[in-house]
Amino acid sequence: MSADYTAMWQELGLDLEAHDGLLTVLGAAYRDIYLSQQNRPEAMAYFDFCVSGIHGLRIKELMEAQAEGRKVVGSFCLYVPEEIILAAKGISVGLCAGADLGTGQSGRLLPNNTCALIRSFVDFKLAKVCPYFEASDLVIGETTCDGKKKAYEILGELHNTFVLEVPHTKSASARALWRSEIGRLVGRVKELSGVTITAEGLAEGIRIVNAKRAALQRLARLRAAEPAPISGRDALLINQIQFYDDPVRFTESVHALCDELDGRVAEGEGVAPSSAPRVLVSGCPMAAPNWKVPFLVERNGGVIVGEESCVGERGTRNEVAEGGSSCEKMLDAIAERYLQIDCAVFTPNEERIGHIIEMARDLNADGVLQYVIQFCTPYSMETHRVEEAMRQEGLPLLKLETDYSMEDAGALETRIQAFLEMLTARSER
Amino acid sequence: MSADYTAMWQELGLDLEAHDGLLTVLGAAYRDIYLSQQNRPEAMAYFDFCVSGIHGLRIKELMEAQAEGRKVVGSFCLYVPEEIILAAKGISVGLCAGADLGTGQSGRLLPNNTCALIRSFVDFKLAKVCPYFEASDLVIGETTCDGKKKAYEILGELHNTFVLEVPHTKSASARALWRSEIGRLVGRVKELSGVTITAEGLAEGIRIVNAKRAALQRLARLRAAEPAPISGRDALLINQIQFYDDPVRFTESVHALCDELDGRVAEGEGVAPSSAPRVLVSGCPMAAPNWKVPFLVERNGGVIVGEESCVGERGTRNEVAEGGSSCEKMLDAIAERYLQIDCAVFTPNEERIGHIIEMARDLNADGVLQYVIQFCTPYSMETHRVEEAMRQEGLPLLKLETDYSMEDAGALETRIQAFLEMLTARSER
Repeated sequence: MSADYTAMWQELGLDLEAHDGLLTVLGAAYRDIYLSQQNRPEAMAYFDFCVSGIHGLRIKELMEAQAEGRKVVGSFCLYVPEEIILAAKGISVGLCAGADLGTGQSGRLLPNNTCALIRSFVDFKLAKVCPYFEASDLVIGETTCDGKKKAYEILGELHNTFVLEVPHTKSASARALWRSEIGRLVGRVKELSGVTITAEGLAEGIRIVNAKRAALQRLARLRAAEPAPISGRDALLINQIQFYDDPVRFTESVHALCDELDGRVAEGEGVAPSSAPRVLVSGCPMAAPNWKVPFLVERNGGVIVGEESCVGERGTRNEVAEGGSSCEKMLDAIAERYLQIDCAVFTPNEERIGHIIEMARDLNADGVLQYVIQFCTPYSMETHRVEEAMRQEGLPLLKLETDYSMEDAGALETRIQAFLEMLTARSER
Repeated sequence: MSADYTAMWQELGLDLEAHDGLLTVLGAAYRDIYLSQQNRPEAMAYFDFCVSGIHGLRIKELMEAQAEGRKVVGSFCLYVPEEIILAAKGISVGLCAGADLGTGQSGRLLPNNTCALIRSFVDFKLAKVCPYFEASDLVIGETTCDGKKKAYEILGELHNTFVLEVPHTKSASARALWRSEIGRLVGRVKELSGVTITAEGLAEGIRIVNAKRAALQRLARLRAAEPAPISGRDALLINQIQFYDDPVRFTESVHALCDELDGRVAEGEGVAPSSAPRVLVSGCPMAAPNWKVPFLVERNGGVIVGEESCVGERGTRNEVAEGGSSCEKMLDAIAERYLQIDCAVFTPNEERIGHIIEMARDLNADGVLQYVIQFCTPYSMETHRVEEAMRQEGLPLLKLETDYSMEDAGALETRIQAFLEMLTARSER
């Protein structure tokens, strides 16, 4: 990344020294985990370019948009509708939450038993090393899990924050609450941006975000091929970049990649041999640059064929119904679509179990890796139900609970190796 | 406890051997922690009697009521309105959740990072040693914290369970959701009991529960006296028994005790010297028989003067407005009252901070003990806000995070002793 951005980072109030250190570590990790891969699709060059500019060029774009009066809105969760932000000519960005900074600064605000994702975003904010955070005119939180819900109270002391109430059932009353929260969000975004949300603007926002989801769904379906035409790491990366990149440019780039993958599939070309055990990852989100587990799976000969995750299918599966005749009807459609997300904060959450089975079948997965970030109560508790369902389905399951540190990498790798060997032995029977 | 109840326990399906073992342990703990106290009010005899019959006589009463067609409804949370259960001629009981059974059976259903309270109730259910559980025709859960919400899914496989959605803000839409859940509860209770809930029945339910709360509030206010007329342990016990005993009999017994305490206060008689450091306990509920921390505080010379807790003020502070002219209006008043509860699952939850300060002032507390059950995300995360507020108020705070085991008793005691010494030194300045 060029040093040309120093003045920009300074303007944003970043801690330049700490930020430089972070970029050095991330650059090295990216080389080891991504650039060392064999036989990558050529179209991954665009996404490598995105990563190279993730703290530079893209932030410059955001700041240029802000100079033109557009607003940048940060969030951490699939429940924040990008359609509404786009309709107000805003830009939606994901905030840094996928790395252990190791500063320990959040320790004075958060309990020890806080999940790595929450600890990470509080540390990024305190350490002033997330340019997306610092560039955000508003952060939108949500009452999904207890941890995030209460962390937004703390974050609210540090940043302009607005919290959406997400209900925890899908009853008619819960839907009414959620619909009213969508209305409240529209009001807040209008207040922030000064832009009145029109039916035309909403329709365009819906089209843009649906197109992004459709592109990611096209990519997801291509991974059903044997051999898999793209690594799980690369597919995860693309799912991570969706939260940072311009949605229209991103969508075009995903389709360009898919065109290339179509050719690979037609020619039976893959990133791993057909004999590679095919793993479906399911559970907690892997925010960039949280690549630990996929890297361990794939460097040991497995190939990840899908992510039943917020950074994956959970965010891209359902589209907003288009063709609404008024703002209110379009907001109804948005509310409806977002409540289809099968996050483990809901009770009951049987849809998710059905989705895991459906994905495993569609993607010809040999086994499921249940990924839980330590101290994530909703996903760790729902694992019991996932286990039961996988047993009934006859699908091997590996449960991994971890955080962002590398201290347990050896132990995780041993378990992953044993799981992959078992899957291989099973498929040879 | 008499062996006469063996047949009853067998009929309930309890594991007799394990249950006998539990009663033996609890009996010994009760002698050490309660009966060894000096200068107890004579009226505590009633509550000792309750404890002696808590698995026997009271269960017999429940079963006799069931034989007459009444229903027993179990719960774990202040958000379950007893008024509605009473209006359907039902009996509301708290379920066992305050002891570590040490069986580890819940380990196959729950993650390691599950709070002791949730682990306890699942263990009690699996081990078949909670007669309240086994006698309950229905268990009512709620979507308060992530852990309980997801645990009710597991419990639903083991027991007839109904889950109420509790919102996590107090907005108008959240109130509408909650009010509709109250309506749904009325329907479920009617379905269970066959009793149509009438305005007369609801008015009586409201009167009975308000009277219970008023009695407990009278007791709470008496503890402001110096010296404190009753130990914190005894006051906690009474707050625990409220969830098991017949509400009318219980209310009378609390008033009888308060009459005696009035006399003590008038004569300046207390359970501890006036110089004893006065501690306000704040935080997570202490379900019976979770007496560990109060015992450690009081055997080291402190006296607990209040519980800012679900088993304490959080449950007794607010009354339901009486005088509603119809069922619907009374249900509105019930919904309104229950949403005043300042549980840490709400965001923001500033009311709680105000209540802690108010209680500390009213009760002349020298310091606050912030009690958090390990892995309770809402209270552990809200501790940051409590700390800030206590610092501003100039009130010393001791944070303790613990579970139900006795393994950390030594370490806790050392910290408690240091805190009490500091409070004493402070008051001598």
